[in-house]
Amino acid sequence: MKDVAARAGVGLKTVSRVVNGEPGVTPDTERRVQEAIDALGFRRNDSARVLRKGRTASIGLVLEDLADPFYGPLSRAVEEVARAHGALLINGSSAEDPAREQELVLALCARRVDGLVVIPAGDDHRYLEPEIKAGVATVFVDRPAGRIDADAVMSDSYGGARSGVAHLIAHGHRRIGFIGDQPRIHTAAERLRGYRAAMEDAGLPVDSSWVSLGSTDPVRVRDAAAAILDGPSPVTAFFAGNNRVTVTLVRVLAERRRRVALVGFDDFELADLLDPGVTVIAQDSAQLGRTAAERLFRRLDGGRSGTERSVLPTRLIARGSGELRPEG
Amino acid sequence: MKDVAARAGVGLKTVSRVVNGEPGVTPDTERRVQEAIDALGFRRNDSARVLRKGRTASIGLVLEDLADPFYGPLSRAVEEVARAHGALLINGSSAEDPAREQELVLALCARRVDGLVVIPAGDDHRYLEPEIKAGVATVFVDRPAGRIDADAVMSDSYGGARSGVAHLIAHGHRRIGFIGDQPRIHTAAERLRGYRAAMEDAGLPVDSSWVSLGSTDPVRVRDAAAAILDGPSPVTAFFAGNNRVTVTLVRVLAERRRRVALVGFDDFELADLLDPGVTVIAQDSAQLGRTAAERLFRRLDGGRSGTERSVLPTRLIARGSGELRPEG
Repeated sequence: MKDVAARAGVGLKTVSRVVNGEPGVTPDTERRVQEAIDALGFRRNDSARVLRKGRTASIGLVLEDLADPFYGPLSRAVEEVARAHGALLINGSSAEDPAREQELVLALCARRVDGLVVIPAGDDHRYLEPEIKAGVATVFVDRPAGRIDADAVMSDSYGGARSGVAHLIAHGHRRIGFIGDQPRIHTAAERLRGYRAAMEDAGLPVDSSWVSLGSTDPVRVRDAAAAILDGPSPVTAFFAGNNRVTVTLVRVLAERRRRVALVGFDDFELADLLDPGVTVIAQDSAQLGRTAAERLFRRLDGGRSGTERSVLPTRLIARGSGELRPEG
Repeated sequence: MKDVAARAGVGLKTVSRVVNGEPGVTPDTERRVQEAIDALGFRRNDSARVLRKGRTASIGLVLEDLADPFYGPLSRAVEEVARAHGALLINGSSAEDPAREQELVLALCARRVDGLVVIPAGDDHRYLEPEIKAGVATVFVDRPAGRIDADAVMSDSYGGARSGVAHLIAHGHRRIGFIGDQPRIHTAAERLRGYRAAMEDAGLPVDSSWVSLGSTDPVRVRDAAAAILDGPSPVTAFFAGNNRVTVTLVRVLAERRRRVALVGFDDFELADLLDPGVTVIAQDSAQLGRTAAERLFRRLDGGRSGTERSVLPTRLIARGSGELRPEG
């Protein structure tokens, strides 16, 4: 609105009058204001809406990885909520790089989104403070914000992993491996904590060679699994830290003669049609997206209460791979 | 740049001098220009780059469905190429709605992306002509533009489907069903054309009850498959028009006693680990994205030759489901 006023060489009040169709503006001034609006690249209808509410009717979603199917239902749910509120959704992906996340978030703010749903890659979000103060509503999803106070919607990674590992223990396993994502990622650290808690609950020691955290690249996961299975103290079961790890472990275990049990964090397509079916700790990624987006629009509609952190429950789905008994 | 000049109350030349650090500007004017740049919401470093090249170093990608895994590798490939060119990628999804596609494309243009990669939902893109004339480079991918002349990168849907159906015929099938996406979608129509050509090549009639086009919603596909399998002239094999249809057909066929052969267009994760493995016509979705994005950056770098339409080959991957012989 300020840009329009500056370009048309009139005051803010005049722009507001033109946009709202109020009297007291000469035809010449009206024309100049309209030309400024057009020149600044907004559609005529949108511009009126933007100027009236001080909003652009668009929100941004910063994802972690465009190719991870976990984020598909989450993105679609955010989009559906945005659509129901008459807003466009614009996304970008950080590719799990904190610098890229910051660049992308600020680029979206510079393009004047009203709000942001962020799956953070980094753990220091103080760079967002000026934007939040300037009125950009922000909700974090899947992982919390770092070093700022902000709304967050997450799954119960700790509790889910703990119950998944307890399920393996209940089926007779004593030597259980954990392969997860990079330890600086909040969900990876929480799931490892859940694994350790379940082992401790059962009085079972954890051999340090059984735990491997790092990239979810198939080659890395394959090497980690081989090292654990071919080492001096092989496990009889694995807990996989997310769907990318699980899918690679399904392949690795299918190639081995000895059957190794498996429970994975995250459900994934066709898990039930594999042989054995893959037992998972399912999180509702669509519900994560929906909850985060609805929180965002409540903030945009003037909700001013303190920040909230919501933790959604997970659900164990037994399909066979997690119910295999230890062999050998 | 014009906005900065207007806001600072100086000429374009002066803004250019400040940005490029040239002499002949008073400290007071320089301060005003810098304030205008800051106020317009650009980061300092970016703003220099934008103003120098007249570019924002960002490109837009308009997808069809955020939750379809086919688009994951395509999006990631576009992002990698953008990154290699120092540009940010911003996406949005049309949810297969032509009006939504247009709204999103124009919203990205209003936010001044340098170029667009578009997977079109609609078949009339004349609304894009003013933007293309104004310098927004545009490349269509997966499906061609409608009613405008524009670059396009696609897979060989016709040839791929034809070879997939010929593969089923070579394994003894005479009654083959086709379940595909909505007929107004270019790839769906092309794949149906390939199916009909293969049947005709073999001198086989096509019963109209064997062909079903429509939404890829699992319920719709399931009903279509049941109608074909339980009708008066049941098929012994299916050709599935895309990965969403294939995945539902895998479920439907797993529930039936009689084994029905299946070849699907698009490869998908874990297709090889199912029993039987799923034979597919694979397209290289990452290569589609990469080719389209590289074409876009060539255009941005001043490539002025006529528009090109590239068709990438598909590849048949035999895994078992397409090699089943007819039963009964």
